[in-house]
Parts: sequence; C-alpha cells; structure tokens
Amino acid sequence: MTLAPPPGVMLETAVRAALVEDLGRAGDVTSEAIVPAETRARFAIVAREPGVLAGLPAARSAFALIDPAVGFDAMADEGERVSPGATVALVEGAARSILTAERVALNFLGHLSGVATATAGIADAIAHTRTRVCCTRKTTPGLRALEKYAVRAGGGVNHRFGLDDAILVKDNHIAVAGGVAAAIDRAKRAAGHLMPIEVEVDSLEQLARVLDDPVTAVLLDNFDPVLAAQAVTMVGGRMTVEASGRVTAALAPALAEAGVDLVSAGWVTHSAPVLDLGLDEA
Amino acid sequence: MTLAPPPGVMLETAVRAALVEDLGRAGDVTSEAIVPAETRARFAIVAREPGVLAGLPAARSAFALIDPAVGFDAMADEGERVSPGATVALVEGAARSILTAERVALNFLGHLSGVATATAGIADAIAHTRTRVCCTRKTTPGLRALEKYAVRAGGGVNHRFGLDDAILVKDNHIAVAGGVAAAIDRAKRAAGHLMPIEVEVDSLEQLARVLDDPVTAVLLDNFDPVLAAQAVTMVGGRMTVEASGRVTAALAPALAEAGVDLVSAGWVTHSAPVLDLGLDEA
Amino acid sequence: MTLAPPPGVMLETAVRAALVEDLGRAGDVTSEAIVPAETRARFAIVAREPGVLAGLPAARSAFALIDPAVGFDAMADEGERVSPGATVALVEGAARSILTAERVALNFLGHLSGVATATAGIADAIAHTRTRVCCTRKTTPGLRALEKYAVRAGGGVNHRFGLDDAILVKDNHIAVAGGVAAAIDRAKRAAGHLMPIEVEVDSLEQLARVLDDPVTAVLLDNFDPVLAAQAVTMVGGRMTVEASGRVTAALAPALAEAGVDLVSAGWVTHSAPVLDLGLDEA
Amino acid sequence: MTLAPPPGVMLETAVRAALVEDLGRAGDVTSEAIVPAETRARFAIVAREPGVLAGLPAARSAFALIDPAVGFDAMADEGERVSPGATVALVEGAARSILTAERVALNFLGHLSGVATATAGIADAIAHTRTRVCCTRKTTPGLRALEKYAVRAGGGVNHRFGLDDAILVKDNHIAVAGGVAAAIDRAKRAAGHLMPIEVEVDSLEQLARVLDDPVTAVLLDNFDPVLAAQAVTMVGGRMTVEASGRVTAALAPALAEAGVDLVSAGWVTHSAPVLDLGLDEA
Amino acid sequence: MTLAPPPGVMLETAVRAALVEDLGRAGDVTSEAIVPAETRARFAIVAREPGVLAGLPAARSAFALIDPAVGFDAMADEGERVSPGATVALVEGAARSILTAERVALNFLGHLSGVATATAGIADAIAHTRTRVCCTRKTTPGLRALEKYAVRAGGGVNHRFGLDDAILVKDNHIAVAGGVAAAIDRAKRAAGHLMPIEVEVDSLEQLARVLDDPVTAVLLDNFDPVLAAQAVTMVGGRMTVEASGRVTAALAPALAEAGVDLVSAGWVTHSAPVLDLGLDEA
Amino acid sequence: MTLAPPPGVMLETAVRAALVEDLGRAGDVTSEAIVPAETRARFAIVAREPGVLAGLPAARSAFALIDPAVGFDAMADEGERVSPGATVALVEGAARSILTAERVALNFLGHLSGVATATAGIADAIAHTRTRVCCTRKTTPGLRALEKYAVRAGGGVNHRFGLDDAILVKDNHIAVAGGVAAAIDRAKRAAGHLMPIEVEVDSLEQLARVLDDPVTAVLLDNFDPVLAAQAVTMVGGRMTVEASGRVTAALAPALAEAGVDLVSAGWVTHSAPVLDLGLDEA
Repeated sequence: MTLAPPPGVMLETAVRAALVEDLGRAGDVTSEAIVPAETRARFAIVAREPGVLAGLPAARSAFALIDPAVGFDAMADEGERVSPGATVALVEGAARSILTAERVALNFLGHLSGVATATAGIADAIAHTRTRVCCTRKTTPGLRALEKYAVRAGGGVNHRFGLDDAILVKDNHIAVAGGVAAAIDRAKRAAGHLMPIEVEVDSLEQLARVLDDPVTAVLLDNFDPVLAAQAVTMVGGRMTVEASGRVTAALAPALAEAGVDLVSAGWVTHSAPVLDLGLDEA
Repeated sequence: MTLAPPPGVMLETAVRAALVEDLGRAGDVTSEAIVPAETRARFAIVAREPGVLAGLPAARSAFALIDPAVGFDAMADEGERVSPGATVALVEGAARSILTAERVALNFLGHLSGVATATAGIADAIAHTRTRVCCTRKTTPGLRALEKYAVRAGGGVNHRFGLDDAILVKDNHIAVAGGVAAAIDRAKRAAGHLMPIEVEVDSLEQLARVLDDPVTAVLLDNFDPVLAAQAVTMVGGRMTVEASGRVTAALAPALAEAGVDLVSAGWVTHSAPVLDLGLDEA
Repeated sequence: MTLAPPPGVMLETAVRAALVEDLGRAGDVTSEAIVPAETRARFAIVAREPGVLAGLPAARSAFALIDPAVGFDAMADEGERVSPGATVALVEGAARSILTAERVALNFLGHLSGVATATAGIADAIAHTRTRVCCTRKTTPGLRALEKYAVRAGGGVNHRFGLDDAILVKDNHIAVAGGVAAAIDRAKRAAGHLMPIEVEVDSLEQLARVLDDPVTAVLLDNFDPVLAAQAVTMVGGRMTVEASGRVTAALAPALAEAGVDLVSAGWVTHSAPVLDLGLDEA
Repeated sequence: MTLAPPPGVMLETAVRAALVEDLGRAGDVTSEAIVPAETRARFAIVAREPGVLAGLPAARSAFALIDPAVGFDAMADEGERVSPGATVALVEGAARSILTAERVALNFLGHLSGVATATAGIADAIAHTRTRVCCTRKTTPGLRALEKYAVRAGGGVNHRFGLDDAILVKDNHIAVAGGVAAAIDRAKRAAGHLMPIEVEVDSLEQLARVLDDPVTAVLLDNFDPVLAAQAVTMVGGRMTVEASGRVTAALAPALAEAGVDLVSAGWVTHSAPVLDLGLDEA
Repeated sequence: MTLAPPPGVMLETAVRAALVEDLGRAGDVTSEAIVPAETRARFAIVAREPGVLAGLPAARSAFALIDPAVGFDAMADEGERVSPGATVALVEGAARSILTAERVALNFLGHLSGVATATAGIADAIAHTRTRVCCTRKTTPGLRALEKYAVRAGGGVNHRFGLDDAILVKDNHIAVAGGVAAAIDRAKRAAGHLMPIEVEVDSLEQLARVLDDPVTAVLLDNFDPVLAAQAVTMVGGRMTVEASGRVTAALAPALAEAGVDLVSAGWVTHSAPVLDLGLDEA
Repeated sequence: MTLAPPPGVMLETAVRAALVEDLGRAGDVTSEAIVPAETRARFAIVAREPGVLAGLPAARSAFALIDPAVGFDAMADEGERVSPGATVALVEGAARSILTAERVALNFLGHLSGVATATAGIADAIAHTRTRVCCTRKTTPGLRALEKYAVRAGGGVNHRFGLDDAILVKDNHIAVAGGVAAAIDRAKRAAGHLMPIEVEVDSLEQLARVLDDPVTAVLLDNFDPVLAAQAVTMVGGRMTVEASGRVTAALAPALAEAGVDLVSAGWVTHSAPVLDLGLDEA
C-alpha cells in the first residue's frame, strides 16, 4: 500500500481541532508569561524508545498552524524504524510558538507512531510468509483515517474505512437473514460492481456455505491455525482469506503459516501504546 | 471528583463526528442490504473482561443519533466495576439502527472504559494511602475532555485540561527564563488570582529554589521513592506535591507511601488498552 | 441496490445548510409580515409532470427543522413513479412555518427527483436486458451522497462515491505509468483486499493488455455497440464490463444489447432537469 | 451587474467541502498508487462545446487547496464565450496533485459555466430589447451564491438571494391575507426603507389592485405576451415589471418585446446542463 | 416591523456556541460539585431596572440545550416594557441544569434587552413625529441578526443587514468614483431590480447632485436640524431621508421634527449598556 | 498579566465568522459596483476620541482574510493610550478590498478598545493602590476570549474564563448545599489540585464561616468600603479578597483603599461603549 498521508485539507482540520482543544480560551499562559516573544530556539524531536514513525506531517502542521515561521525539518521518513535517541525532526523558530505547539505535535506523532510500531511488530513476525497484517474499524473515534494511514506506515494493509465502502456480513446479519445463503444473496443484489463483499464465518460448515456462492473475501473468526489451514485448502484461492482473533506478534506466525492472506488485528489501532518521543533542546 | 460526564452539547458533537466518520457517504450498506427495515431486535452490551465502566452516555448518544426510537437501558453505572459476562446495557429497537450504531458506540465505550480501568488499577494500588492518581495533557487528539472524564470514572483526579487553565513551568521554560526564580517571578506576575502555578523540578536543589517562593504545586519529575520522600519533607505541606514518571500500578505504591499528594500518569490516557466489550443478542 | 436514504445525521446537515442559505440573516420577512403566527394551513406537494420521486426525507426534514410541529405525510414512496397532478405529500401546520420551508423542501425534492427520473429513463430503456445503468463522480458539489441515492431511487446502481473507495485507472494515469501493464501492477500492489480496481480503456488493444492481468472491472470509453460487443466477448466474464460515453435513453439499448454489465452516465447527476413539483393549498 | 465572484472566504469554504466529499477518508488512492510524488505535468482545461465560462476562481481554489504549489493560469475571462477546443486554463505542477483535484475543479467549472451558458442563451435572444433575464430562488441546495454569480457571468441579473433581502408576496400569501390590498398593506408596514416589495399577480384584475398601492415590482405569473403587453401599459413605469413562466430562449423574445423589464427563469439555475470541459495533457 | 425572532436554526447555533464557550472542556464544575443531580428548583428571571425586553427565545434555548426537561415560562412578551422587580420568566427543573445555563441565558437576555431599551429610548423621544429610529452595520461581531432583531423589539427599524442586501454609497466610494453622479451611475448599472440604493451626503450641494438622479434613499451625514429641514424640503418626498450622527434620545427630536424619515444610531447596537436582570429563587 | 492576543487559530475563526456575517451571500455589492478592481488606496485607521487600544490583530486579520495582499502597518501597540486624531494603523492595497473589510475590522477594534478603555478607567483610578481591576463571565456571547484579552490590554486581570476553570460558589449554591460549610466541603472534595475555589459572601458572618475552612479567594458581594475594610482585616491575607458590585472609576478607589486585592466589574465587558475609530484616506 502507498504511504501518502491523509490529504492536507483533512489533516489540517484534525490538527486545528486538537490545537483549539489544547489552547482553550486563553491560550498558552505559561509560555506567554515566561518566554519572551523574541526568544528563538532550536529543538529536536527525539525518540525515547525503538519504533516505527508515523505522523510527521501532523506534527509539522501543528507547528505551522501556531506559527507559519517555525521551521520543521524531518530527519526521518514516515514508516522508518528509529532507535532510542534518534532525532526525527528539528524544529526552529520562536521558542514561544514551539512550546505552545509541542504537546499537540507530540500527541499526534506518539499516537500514530504507536499504531505503526504495533503493526510493524506483527508484520515483522510474519515477514517470512506472504500474509499481510490488516486493521479493522475498531479505531479511536475521530482518528480513523489517520490511524489507518499509520497502519500502512507500519507495513500493514487497510480493511474498509467505514460502513460504506464494503459489505461485511457478520454473525448478527446472518442471524437476521436466516442463514449464510440468504445473507449473501441479499448482499449481492444490493452491491454495486465496485462494492466488495466479505463474510465472517465461525466454522468450516459456514465456510462451505459461503463457497456455494463465493464472495470477495471470507473472515475466519477465531479459527486456530489448524482450522485455518483447512479453511485455506477449502477456499482454494477462490476468495481472499482473512483470519482474526487475538492476533499478536506471537500468535500471528502460526496463522500466517496456515496460508491465510490476511491476519487482522483491532488492537493495533485501539490499544497500541504510544511511541515515546520528546522535545529536547538541540 | 464528581463524575458528571461532559455536557450533552459537547458529547453529542463528538459522537456525531464519529458516526459521520463511520457512515461515510453511503451509510451502512451491509445492514441496509441484509436487515429489513422493520426487523426489531434486542441486544446486550456485554463485558468480555473485568474492568471499570466509562462512556455509557456516549454509547447511548450513538444509538439515539442514528435512531431516536432505539431504547438504551444502562444496567451499570459509570465508574462501576464489571466482571466478564456482565451486561452493561440493553439496547432494543430496529435491528438495522442498532447494528449501524454498534461500532461507534463500542469504540467510545471500550476506549473510555479502558482509560477508567487503567486509572483504577493505579488507584486501587494506592488506596491504602491518601495519594491520588492524576492524568496529564498526553491525551488522544480530540478526546481530551472525554478521557479526563474517564480518569475520574476510574477514581483518578484531573490535571489541567489545557494550556490555558493553569501555569505549568517545565524544564524548557526554566531554561529560557534563566532559572527557577526568574521563571516563578514571571509566572506570578502574569497569573490572575485564579490561575494556579505548578513548577516541575528534577532535583532537590531545584525544589529548594521553588521553596524560596512557593507556588500552588510542585511536580517531581522522575524522582525515586527515596528522593520523593525527602522532597515531601522539604515541602512540609506548603505546596501540593505531584510525582510523575513511569507510574504504574506496580511502582505507584512506593511513591504514594513516600507521601506525595499525587502520582500522575500519561499512559492511562494515551496508552491504555480498550476494555473489551461486545454486542450480543439478548 | 437498496433504497435507504443517506443517514439522518448527514441528511439533516445538508438540509440545515440549505435553510440557513435561504433564511439569510433576517429570515422569511414576507411570511412574517403577512402570515399571522397562529394561522394554520394544509398544503399538498403536487407533481406537475410525470417522473420518479426521490428526496421526500429531505423535504420532511426541511419542514421539521423550521418547525417540529409541522406534520408531513408522504403519499408516495421513494422511487415511485408519479403522474402530473399526483399529491406526493401533505403538509399541515402553521402556515408561516410551511411557507418558510417550502422552497428548500421543493429544491431538494425537485433536484433529487430529477436525478431519479433521468436515471429511470435509461433504466426503462434497457429493462429488457440484464444491463444496469450506473452513475459517475460528475456530481453537483456538495450533493454527491444525495444524488447517488437518487440514482438508486431511479433504478440505477452506484459507481464509486469518491476518490477513496475504488481505484479507477484512467488515460492520464496510464500515460504517467508508461502503459496499462505498469499501471495495473502499481494499482494491485497498492490496493487492499477490499479495494476494487477498474481500468478505463479506449481500444480493444488496451483491453487485451488489461486481460493479461485482469482487474475487477473495465470501463469501455466511448465504444460503439459493435466494438462493445467485441469487448464483451473478449472479456468473457472475467471482469465486469462498464460502457460510458453519451449514454442516453436513446443510445443505451444498443450498448446494453451488446452485453455490457453497466452503462454509465454522468449527465443523470450533473445535468438532469429538476422534476417540477409545487405546493398547493389542500 | 458586476462580475465579482463570491468573496474568497465563502468560495474557499464551498470548494473545501467538495474536496472533502471527494477525498473521503482515504484520499485519492489511484493517483497515490500510480503517480510518483515527484512526477510533474502540465494540463489544459479545454472546452468540449461552445458556452460561457463561469467558475474559474473555484477551479483555481480546488487545485490550490490540494497543493499550493500547483500553478493555475486562466486563459479566458469569466463571462467569456468559448469555442469547442478552446483552452480556458493551464494547470502545472505535481501530476498527483492535479489529478486529485481535477474532478472537483471540473465539477464546479462545468456546473457554473452551464448556468452562465443557459442564461446567456436567453440574454442573447432578447438582446435587441431593453429587457434583462433574471434568476429565482429555485437553485441547487448549497450553491445559491455561486449560481447567482454564474447568472451574472451569463449576462443576467439577480433576483433576491434569500427569504430575507426582499419581500415577495405570492399567491399563498395573498390568500392568507385575504386579498392583495391587505397583503400589500401588511408588507409595507413591516418593511424597512431598504426592503423592496414585489407582488406576484396572475391576472390584470390583480394587477389593477396592486396599482392602487404600488410597490417596487410586480411579477406577472405565466402571462402570455399579449397580456404582458397590456400589463406593461397599465403599470406605465410606476413599478418594475417581471414576467415569469417557461421562459426559454425561444419564448423570451415575445415577452421581452411586450416591454417587461425582466424575464425570470428558474431553469437556468436548477436545470441547466453542465458545460462539457475536460482536462487534457498540454 | 414584525417581531419574529431569528429562525430557530440560527438562534440555536448562536446559543450553542455561547454554551460551549462557557462550559469549556470540563463543564460546570461548581454545580456538579455542590448541587446534587436530583435537586429540583424554581427560579425567576427578574428585571433589576426598567427597560424593554428582547431575547427570551435565546434564554429559553440556553436552558433547553443544557436540559430539555427544564421548563421555561415567559411571563412577558418580547418588546414589552418591564419595571424593576418584574418577573420576566419562570424557570423550573433540575437545579444543576438551571445554574449551568444561567449565565449564558442572562448574557443573551441582558445584551439584547439593552439594545431594545436603548432603541426604545430614542423611539419614545420621537413618538410624536412620523420619524422612525434605525440601526446600522456597527454591530457586535457575530451578533448582527440578533441585535437587529432587538432593535425591532425596541420599536426601531432595520437598516441593511450586510454588505450584500443594499448599495450604500459613502464618501470613500464617491471619492474613488470621482463624484456623486458617476457613483450613482455605476451603482444603478450594477443593481438588480430589488437592490435598493442609498447615498450618503455631507452637504446640500451633494444632495442636489443626488437629486439629479434620485435613488432609494439619502443619508444626511451629521446634518444639524436646520440643514436637515432644508434637505427634507429639497428632496420633496422623492427619496427616503435618513439622518445620522450622534443620534441620542436628547438630540433625536429636533432631527425628527425636521421631517426626516429615519434617524439612525450605531450606538444602540454597539454601545448600549445591558439591561440588568438576575436569576432569583422563586 | 501578559498581553498576548488569543492564538491566531482562534482569532481567525472569529474574524472569518464576522466577515461571512457581513458579506452575506452576495458580498460587497457597493464596492464591486463603484470601485474598479485595480484602484489602489492608502487609508489610516484614526482614533476619534481618547482611549486604550485593543484588537489590532483582529483588524489586521479582517483585511488579510479578504485580501492577503493588503498591507497593514500598526502605528500603535496593543494597550497603548491614543489621543483623538491619532493614526493607529495604515492600510494599503486594493481600495475595494479595504472598503469591504473596513466595517468588520472597525467593529472588532472599536469593541475591544472600548473594553480596554473602560478597564483602564478603573485601573487608573486605583493605580495608587495595589488593588487590581478584574473582569467577570458577564461577557458578550461569542466574544469572551477576545474581551478578556481586551481587559488585560486595559491593565486589568482576568477572572475565570468559563464554568470549568475555577469553582465559584455563589448564593444559589450555598442555599442548595445548606450552608457555607457544606458547600466548601463539597467543593474541596470535588476539586483537583489545580482547581481554585472562590466563595461569594454577602456578610461578615458568611465570611467568618469561610474562614473556618479557607479557600483560594473570597468574593465580597456589594460590600461598602467600610465593610470591605473589615473583611480585609478578618481575612488577614489568608485568601485573595475580591470585591464586586457597581465598580466604576468613581467608586473603585474607596474599595481599593479598603485593601481588597481585586475589584471586579461586569460592565467593562458587557456595557462598555465602543471606542470611536474611523477609516480615513491617508
């Protein structure tokens, strides 16, 4: 997948909202009290632990929205692995502006790098296979596009972005429809030619039913590696096979070796710890 | 601290944005394809692991914004501890509406309950002391007010909400000002009578300098428990004492027993894993 | 395709903006001057020409946002064909409220019904085939989701909703990539498992190149029916075949009879005349 | 009327919304996949049919909002007549940026030029008279200010922009008031000194009643040319005379020759087909 | 002029913004700390000084947006004169909700009633003439529509609402155009049939020039009553005559008696003191 | 207090909204009609009366948002005293742009300078004491942050910015809590370590009760200077003492001489007359 960040018109909207959230009504009273307007400074954004970077454009935008005269030089690329102590960007300009924007810049950069790092952990663990790691819609409210971008930065691929860009038939839908066959039939009749259809199954029996009327992809819900391998054999390449359920760097290899196309993990977006980064005098 | 959630006018804005993010341009194509408009259903939101609840008003709002006719009965209180399998709410109405709002409702509830649970873990560990656990401004962009609320739900207290409601003098400010004394002097001259001032110190020497001209609170940055105890003695009740730095449930008790008023932890808002909850047929 | 209108949270936002656009700063000075606040009235929304309805939920929302006490009874269904003189809805309540909301309600209803009617004209013309009529991204700025819904109301199907829910490789992309093969290769490497890929071709030679590495769909750009039939034969069911270019009710049947899966028309969204409807005393 | 486009602060808001609508959550996946970030290109916006231009500032804004480094050179003026094949603007810069903004730019330019062209068709047909062509409030939701601007670009004049900048007494108002005289009396008592009043009449009898108490303008609703000429004679210059009802380039001359000041047409804003324009390599 | 308040969709937007401004990120910490959620109360909004009321719908909206269950009974009408001690509304419901919304409700009510009271002061002073008092565009940023409504509540009439609903030719325009005649000529050529034109003059000589080519209205800038009377005679009813410049209740009668149609005062919107109102237990 | 204006991201949002409010849908029809696009001009913003300046950044922003090419040179500083006739800024560029932005620029500048001037009047009157003048939450809806900034420009200090950044216990809260002691107890239990608490008292008896359990500050409501002096003595420096109630330049000195720390006045934000400024040719 390509690594282009969300378009600037979207990115800037999110960063502006975060700045307003932090500035409140009175702005940065500390810096205004203590830092003379004319004091200039040079800071480095430094990684405090190893990880994979994502979010430098958001950090750059935070400084630029506070003060267009602040210079921001990225010293690393999006998706790049960094070591503790590595400088990922240099920031130079009015000290007051930089300190005002610091927290918002780091909150974006830390959060998105955390997502990228978590994703990369799984991606690395399955790099010896052709399986890819994939995200879900279990994202942090308001940050979906950015988190999905961070997944790509970590070497993962994206699942659907919302309720509207793919049909995903889950257990509750199957129950309402009265069975897999009926659900698939309704989905196909409703879908346009560019609307992919994926069906979640919880057993080989359900999978067999899907194979009677194949769709774009099948999601094996909590299959163990042995079962997953059987499923892959049954599908025989006729559908993309995705496996979900507690996918961690430790558990992913066995699933990947079972031959699935994708392992998907919600936790890389909703529960990844931030990557620790700080702003040091440079 | 009280447990009133963010005002409805704010909460609804956040939930509406998350729904728009998920619905995209075409809405829930899956449910519209498969679930007849007239099918009614009853679901339970069920905890899949132990934790502390926060975010039921956001979940309620997600269902209500999609369909005001959906009934939402909370079966647990905000801040309540739940066991795996516990039903925290019953949702009843048009199946299509419920399935459309499900993910947004659970994303809020899981994220905020995760923050509450992480906070409660520390709060429990120091419950034998008079020390309280406190949050920071290291929050997820766009969710600060909600995450700070979740901290309260978990038994914690809030630090400042933004750059504007308290002065917090940190190392970079002290460096620019040319020392602690100058920084405090500038801060006091700038502060109104309702503007608290806190100063971060990294040594007992710096602390001594603050005690020359006491402020509202002092933040001991990465003090070990022994040093923290000495700091508490030096302060002698003249300022609130907050200790930060890698505060976990395991490490907090020693700091608390050193006598600090507050231990603060950024990770409870920026790196807490979600609490796993699901929507089951009821 | 299903006929669920855009979610209420989206619909209401569009209608609210249109009301603000019409009310300006001073509101409806005419009705306030002339119509006593207590005067009640009953009006009918009446079709003045034959067509296919779309947009009743938007009309309903316009009245409700001005005055929740106004009653709105739809007398026809979305997607229904109406004859001149047919009452499509009854509106009852404060005369002032109804007259204030009238123009916005009719502007939505007329525009969307115009799109539905135009679409239905083509759909009817090719009803004897299995070909479907499809829309494009050539929509009126700000109204894409609503116009795509109106296409469905008219019996059409939707193409992608934006730049992000499918890859559509066009002539300019092929030129930049240095050929069809390179473009498809890059697209496939970038696409996730739920990202459909369509390629536009302007000759059978280009089509042959696509067939070397088939994608989800192929778009025959301005093929005449004879060429289209040859293309359908070449594809042999391995990809969805869409034909575009001056597709009207008169020209569509020949293309449809050539066996393409879809005929697509930009004009049904960007150039369809409104359906004439009026508000009469009832 | 002058031809200044809507102020930039308004124009940019509309264009930004259209871009967000098209970019969705993931942005332009096709261009990101296929077009290298560093590839530069030069394109021409070319008219594919004859017409009158309007909307170049919106097109310029679309490219600039995606990428401020894209150059946009207008080769024609707003309101200018163009022939098929004419280049109306040159666009140069990053190919990816240009292709991403292309559709939004063309959607605005095509729609507004369509309105201008439709208006000009009537304006040309009545150019031998002193009558002017005028628009209505029957506009596309969300685009009123832009469409009214396009009417001016086509040589027309604007009617009121909303419910608040003029009083327009229509049949329903007259019915509620209990007659023309009462309606005019209420309108005059409510109107400030800068609030024009226009009254719609459907017969010479009603017109006579208006002349008992003249207002700014009278709207002859569906008068044929013979009746319109009688009305003009009756009014004798005491009010502006506007004639509406199925005003096309074919029917307008007879009405204009009847001596009315204005012929007004809703279709030029709500039903004008777009002007066909494309983006070609230059 | 009629007294209908700004449409609800506009009013609610302004009130919601003011609530968000007051609630900040953490809401009403005082009431949440001290007032139990279940405590009910009944309060009266009481005038503390004599004045004219405006803004009850805004006050009602403030309480309703915080808590739809709060009852709000207006005990006086918009535009009504109140005496010190008069109850203008009763508010009943959850004490916490009422205290949270109190300040926003009173800020709107006090500000708008202040505008109405100031206007009424002038209106009363000239009630023995046929002259009306009028406002300007010198309004408080963000509150124009509401302040213009309050002017009507005070018995005044409205001038234009913005730069777009009338042409007002002022000294700087005349200077640029090279004289009154040229300015009027350009204005008339640009104006549509519903666009009123007013010209500001600073001498009888300039007025004579306007009378060579009369427009809708003339604004006598800082004319003393003697000069104003001469101007009225010169105009002889051919244009509306407005007089501006330091118009207070004391100075207005002489101008009104000079026969002008309107006296306009910027201070009633930009410098009127608030009407003092409070919330008392009832 | 420092004099940094509200952050640009907030300021620009307020100015943009005011411009949209003034431009309406059609923009500045007068300037577009009369002022050629290419005419350049140079204007001075001139004070017409003595006062204290605030709001130049807002004025600058108004011109810049209409036309980034307009030059704006401030000739005076924020918070500076100006004499009648003094030029406070020079504005140079396209005459049309300058005239379009003029009113919004002056509305902000006049309003905020009015607040600063009113504040300075009190500040000057008590300059011989150590007492400071302070504002309240009685601000104009939508302008709180800007008005509080103007208070600082006038030499005053700020009270809390909203309901969320300090606890202020007033009579109604005390009544609900059943007394001062209970209210303070609840407030302290709810407050975080950075949440200041102020209690309003209306008698020395109530003050005595507060002194039993001191808080950050006490607000003497309508105490005369004699009583205020007694209160100051009672408090003995243990709390900040604020006095409110009809605080004008005439009455403030006696209160200040009574030894209170702060005198607070709502009227400086809600009822200060604007400072008269105009735009003259330069």
